Amino acid sequence: MPGAPAPVYLDCDTGIDDSVALAYLLASPEVDLVGIGTVSGNVTAAQGARNTLDLLALAGRPGIPVAVGAHDPLVGRYGGAVPHIHGRNGVGDVELPASEVDPVGEDAAEFLVRLAKEHGGALRVVAVGPLTNLARALELEPALPGLVSEVTIMGGAALVPGNVSAVAEANIANDPEAAAVVFAAPWDLTLVPLDVTLENTLEEEHRRVLLASADPFLIGLGRILDVYFDFYVDLYGRRGSALHDPLAAAIAAGGITPTIAPRVPVVIDATDGPGRGQTLCDLRGQRRGSVDRPGARCRVVLATDAPLAPHLLDRLLARWA
Amino acid sequence: MPGAPAPVYLDCDTGIDDSVALAYLLASPEVDLVGIGTVSGNVTAAQGARNTLDLLALAGRPGIPVAVGAHDPLVGRYGGAVPHIHGRNGVGDVELPASEVDPVGEDAAEFLVRLAKEHGGALRVVAVGPLTNLARALELEPALPGLVSEVTIMGGAALVPGNVSAVAEANIANDPEAAAVVFAAPWDLTLVPLDVTLENTLEEEHRRVLLASADPFLIGLGRILDVYFDFYVDLYGRRGSALHDPLAAAIAAGGITPTIAPRVPVVIDATDGPGRGQTLCDLRGQRRGSVDRPGARCRVVLATDAPLAPHLLDRLLARWA
Repeated sequence: MPGAPAPVYLDCDTGIDDSVALAYLLASPEVDLVGIGTVSGNVTAAQGARNTLDLLALAGRPGIPVAVGAHDPLVGRYGGAVPHIHGRNGVGDVELPASEVDPVGEDAAEFLVRLAKEHGGALRVVAVGPLTNLARALELEPALPGLVSEVTIMGGAALVPGNVSAVAEANIANDPEAAAVVFAAPWDLTLVPLDVTLENTLEEEHRRVLLASADPFLIGLGRILDVYFDFYVDLYGRRGSALHDPLAAAIAAGGITPTIAPRVPVVIDATDGPGRGQTLCDLRGQRRGSVDRPGARCRVVLATDAPLAPHLLDRLLARWA
Repeated sequence: MPGAPAPVYLDCDTGIDDSVALAYLLASPEVDLVGIGTVSGNVTAAQGARNTLDLLALAGRPGIPVAVGAHDPLVGRYGGAVPHIHGRNGVGDVELPASEVDPVGEDAAEFLVRLAKEHGGALRVVAVGPLTNLARALELEPALPGLVSEVTIMGGAALVPGNVSAVAEANIANDPEAAAVVFAAPWDLTLVPLDVTLENTLEEEHRRVLLASADPFLIGLGRILDVYFDFYVDLYGRRGSALHDPLAAAIAAGGITPTIAPRVPVVIDATDGPGRGQTLCDLRGQRRGSVDRPGARCRVVLATDAPLAPHLLDRLLARWA
């Protein structure tokens, strides 16, 4: 018998795959999405909030509060958006119907701390952008790790190349200092790295199903994905996309279960050297099977029980089609 | 029709797997081993030279000159030997018959430069220890890259964990500053990293064949391997050993051929951060097949055409048994 839905805070930089992750969480019966914060990454934090509000309205959920978070990383300045990946507006250059709802007045870090306190230790945090808001929330409330139930992070690369350098993944590389704070804090983390997100793809056949539905939100998602599908041709040799953020959402919700996910020490490279932004996951000693290292609090997801795309599509169609 | 044997300079820190690599090179008809330099790593440079001379005498090749090289890395001090891996004397605590030959008077770096000049561009360099001697040779003779035909290095970890940190392999980690010099120099490198050396193992059945031979050198190798086989039980779950240095020797000699070995940018982490000693191999864009990156001069070996152990054993038995 399913229990009550778990309260979830989503931290994102919406973003095309963020949009799909948002859709997954809205469609998931295990989840009560109680708040969303945005951070600069794929787009600015302000644009990400705009996109998120528009998507929520289109999905019929305009009441979920959205807080704008950090524009700049802890150190330095925001490096700019990635229009060749996510389109100029972050949602594939699709003009979504404008929501009439505004972001809440609170900063995302303050908002996260308040939600954690309100939900008495039950809040699940899902972070699919740079970790600036989480780091600032830890500064505001050092007791935060005891106030949330778990944290799931899309980011990093353990045993595969990075996507913005030989070794660094974009979310972590966009604010390594924040990531260092987040990974050093005493909470249970689940890291969903490129190792596993790149193995989960949405294909043109799935996108056509979304476009063929009667629901404007699903049709919107299908249209948004068009630009993103172009970007991945170089990587996969065909149109399609990695399901980075949706996989983290699905693991946090419990719809997808990690099968190889050892708890190991994870250290962030926040030097100015060639490894800046790397998630150094100490996966030594795993050759004979997945082994949790004593004292390690971060599980690094290297394999899951099922491909995400069909499960994702089922959820979206069950909810909106 | 095979051509004349290629002149080879071996730089090593003998060491048990160095001993097997030496044996392989001595047994290889493609190779004329014209000189050996030693460096501190598995043992001190001086002890490594002693071990090498004793092995050469036992193998019936006492005339190959051995030069002692750098005791300390370019920066800092030698960190000490690893008796739990290679035994207290570096050759598995076996007392080899003492050679009467002494090392040559020259430093290994000077010796390498002289050999390169003498062999008119034909010299192959095989480096299976820390890269201090090669870096110092480049300082002595910046034109060295034009004076050798190729350089094969056992070291680093590309897409697998390191062996002395989450990301660093011992040879590179023992002198990252030297490795940075060597990888930045304009010569063609072949990097043989843990990704492929850990996949090539010598098993107890192979060691028994060595012990059962009538030749004192092969019996000596079999005895030397005993301690090393114990060390690898934690990794493999059985007695045996990785063939780190022998695989680099076999690739340099041409007995084993890389099948996946893209030429890609390789940068050494010489910071004091958590990635110190890492070989950052930029393997992005390799998902659809092995792709050489324009201008890259280092091929990173990720797969080979055949398992090394049976080939190695065949060569040793053909030469000495």
